[in-house]
Amino acid sequence: MMPATRLDSVINLAKRRGFVFQAGEIYGGSRSAWDYGPLGAELKENIKTAWWQTFVRGREDMVGLDSSIILPKRVWEASGHVATFTDPLVESLHTHKRYRADHLVEAYIAKHGRPPVNGLADIRDPETGQEGNWTEPQQFSGLMKTFLGPVDNEEGLHYLRPETAQGIFVNFLNVVTAARKKPPFGIGQVGKAFRNEITPGNFIFRTREFEQMEIEFFTAPDDAARWFEHWVEVCWDWFTDLGIDPDNMRRFDVPEDERAHYSAGTIDLEYRFGFQGSEWGELMGVANRTDFDLSNHSDASGTKLQYFDQNSGDRYTPYVIEPSFGLTRSMMAFLVDAYAEDEAPNAKGGVDKRTVLKLDPRLAPVKAAVLPLSRNENLSPKARDLAAELRKRWNIDFDDAGAIGRRYRRQDEIGTPFCVTVDFDTLDDQAVTIRERDTMGQERVALDRVTAYLSERLAGA
Amino acid sequence: MMPATRLDSVINLAKRRGFVFQAGEIYGGSRSAWDYGPLGAELKENIKTAWWQTFVRGREDMVGLDSSIILPKRVWEASGHVATFTDPLVESLHTHKRYRADHLVEAYIAKHGRPPVNGLADIRDPETGQEGNWTEPQQFSGLMKTFLGPVDNEEGLHYLRPETAQGIFVNFLNVVTAARKKPPFGIGQVGKAFRNEITPGNFIFRTREFEQMEIEFFTAPDDAARWFEHWVEVCWDWFTDLGIDPDNMRRFDVPEDERAHYSAGTIDLEYRFGFQGSEWGELMGVANRTDFDLSNHSDASGTKLQYFDQNSGDRYTPYVIEPSFGLTRSMMAFLVDAYAEDEAPNAKGGVDKRTVLKLDPRLAPVKAAVLPLSRNENLSPKARDLAAELRKRWNIDFDDAGAIGRRYRRQDEIGTPFCVTVDFDTLDDQAVTIRERDTMGQERVALDRVTAYLSERLAGA
Repeated sequence: MMPATRLDSVINLAKRRGFVFQAGEIYGGSRSAWDYGPLGAELKENIKTAWWQTFVRGREDMVGLDSSIILPKRVWEASGHVATFTDPLVESLHTHKRYRADHLVEAYIAKHGRPPVNGLADIRDPETGQEGNWTEPQQFSGLMKTFLGPVDNEEGLHYLRPETAQGIFVNFLNVVTAARKKPPFGIGQVGKAFRNEITPGNFIFRTREFEQMEIEFFTAPDDAARWFEHWVEVCWDWFTDLGIDPDNMRRFDVPEDERAHYSAGTIDLEYRFGFQGSEWGELMGVANRTDFDLSNHSDASGTKLQYFDQNSGDRYTPYVIEPSFGLTRSMMAFLVDAYAEDEAPNAKGGVDKRTVLKLDPRLAPVKAAVLPLSRNENLSPKARDLAAELRKRWNIDFDDAGAIGRRYRRQDEIGTPFCVTVDFDTLDDQAVTIRERDTMGQERVALDRVTAYLSERLAGA
Repeated sequence: MMPATRLDSVINLAKRRGFVFQAGEIYGGSRSAWDYGPLGAELKENIKTAWWQTFVRGREDMVGLDSSIILPKRVWEASGHVATFTDPLVESLHTHKRYRADHLVEAYIAKHGRPPVNGLADIRDPETGQEGNWTEPQQFSGLMKTFLGPVDNEEGLHYLRPETAQGIFVNFLNVVTAARKKPPFGIGQVGKAFRNEITPGNFIFRTREFEQMEIEFFTAPDDAARWFEHWVEVCWDWFTDLGIDPDNMRRFDVPEDERAHYSAGTIDLEYRFGFQGSEWGELMGVANRTDFDLSNHSDASGTKLQYFDQNSGDRYTPYVIEPSFGLTRSMMAFLVDAYAEDEAPNAKGGVDKRTVLKLDPRLAPVKAAVLPLSRNENLSPKARDLAAELRKRWNIDFDDAGAIGRRYRRQDEIGTPFCVTVDFDTLDDQAVTIRERDTMGQERVALDRVTAYLSERLAGA
């Protein structure tokens, strides 16, 4: 088991080095939203790119889509979200603050190792510690609303999507026609989603504004079970191929009473984040949504969202297998899994502790750092020229401040795979020293070979 | 001057081939929101990637950021948006529908070639054609609101960002500290923004949900004028380098009374979209925001958003030069500019009309199409293997339906730079025919050289 402090170390590093900032920090900040700084924006973009390449561009049976965040109320009525996308909310009669009843119970179990015998009555007010005095649970919508048009009325009422999926379902026929696709095929989408979480928390794990990477895969009903297994497997492989230790992942077969309202079966992939209380958290889930969504939208819109198979002469409503990834959660898992502390040789012949993010080069926010050994009128221009050359292809750091060992440490802790040092010998031999992050091994490489050297080792990155 | 039908042809093509769908079409659709289909999602992604590479990864003086869409009311009070981000709205006393007064006047000028002498009184009801009978203009907020937390009250009131810029300003100090940056430097961001436009229209040109690519470039006040010119130039070059005909672009120096509330000077780059009435439309603008935003957020938050120059010993509030691009507008411009109709030889020795999108290969949604000459048990597997191989690097189409000439036409009109035909000779000579989109020239290329052949010609794509 990982110590809780490992997660704390990652969060601290992420904030300090500019992966993640608290949204609106200068105005007191918010628990429910985070901004992604220079390194976080690059890491997140690299995760998206890897996902899109594996699951959309890389597969003949997939296409992409990018649909609107705001959709009219009718879509969310048909999808079942207006009626069932709710959480049980209780109010403390001491403070008049509201809490999710299920989260209060979970917190109690995490603390006491057993459920509260008398239900909510056993649960003290989290703020004052007073004996529990709660209202009856009321269902509270997790949808965020907004108004479009000149008047705030029912006609203008729209909802921000709580999942990107519905934008895919309502475009099912458009895609079949325009992209000439037939089942089995899928539509992938990456984008923001919004849920009015009452108790956001655990850093970027549960937030009101978050990013999803979703696939809706349409199949003949008889093939749904087979494709379900396929998707659970390829999703697992995507994480491990990008470096997640399989020992830190597990499959969780979600019991019926915990599944979303549309699902006839869900397998979650969980990651060992190391949260206090329960160390595992959901990374992504594969759900069998059956023909629930297409049927509901057919009924509500009057447009038949079906497929006519010209070979068999059958007309049917496809089943949908949905692999749904949390992008921000994936980013958190990649950071936690890559985090390591080891030792590096120092200038005095001893060793120093070092922190290193062993990120897959495809994910690393900075691919290489160019470091002139010292600030010098001959070294600096040469190093800047090299950085400018490499910058045509990759995200490159240039750092000429401080001792070289300290600059290596700065690059190690943000996961930069290669450091390229321009030293005084470079002026004679037209070569540089390239140091690899994990082995700390160094190689002398001719200046005009640096791009080729990195290309080979950053293949696909 | 382009005929209006050219724009119509592009819109028609975009809908038919799945670049752009009307959002919520099965529920009657919406004028104010559009979904991007398989080709549109790829094209939009390629524009983003080209922009990010040119302006963020490719420049030493830039870093990226990805901040929240929803921000608390206090941010928008400080930015001046709550007070001044408004439009003058009038209500027709005939229909009780509301319109933007300035848009009514613009439409009148476009139709009559002169402004209405008696103001609104001269403007007829757009729906009924009755003589104008309007309420006095009232200021209406363009901000979209939503509520976070368990109760819809003032405390929970938040706004969806109408520009990505403010997320950058409030993180100014975080970036300076974490990324160790000092002026002159800039922060780039790509993301959605939302404005409650009363009269959205012109396809994806003016929508309530749209995407921006923004840079906030921080400089010493004395250097602001120089950087302003720099940014106008490099933004112009970005469009022309990606294929926009300079004859279809122009600079527009925005007069003081039309500038945004924060701007001391704005130059718009306009594109000749060919709208009815006024054929030019804004693609992007470069604004000199001075120290307006950083000063206002300093005052409102109590955190000094300044920079201390260790060399000169000066402490100052940087000026901001803001190049702000419309991503969806850029996409529309790239489509319109790439659209061409010419002639292609047909099988009978004559010529057929063809439609072709002469998109830069970096932007083309599909980089190459693999076409087995006919559906055949020997050709198809070979073609599929080749497609699978190419798909590891690029977005690739596979099409085996219909005559080869017709399949070329299908690829031409979506801008695919290369068609790779696997024919019966391939089984003997292990080579394929590669056809280039614009010249329609064909070359025979060995199967094991196809990846290298395309790599060379799709450099950077």
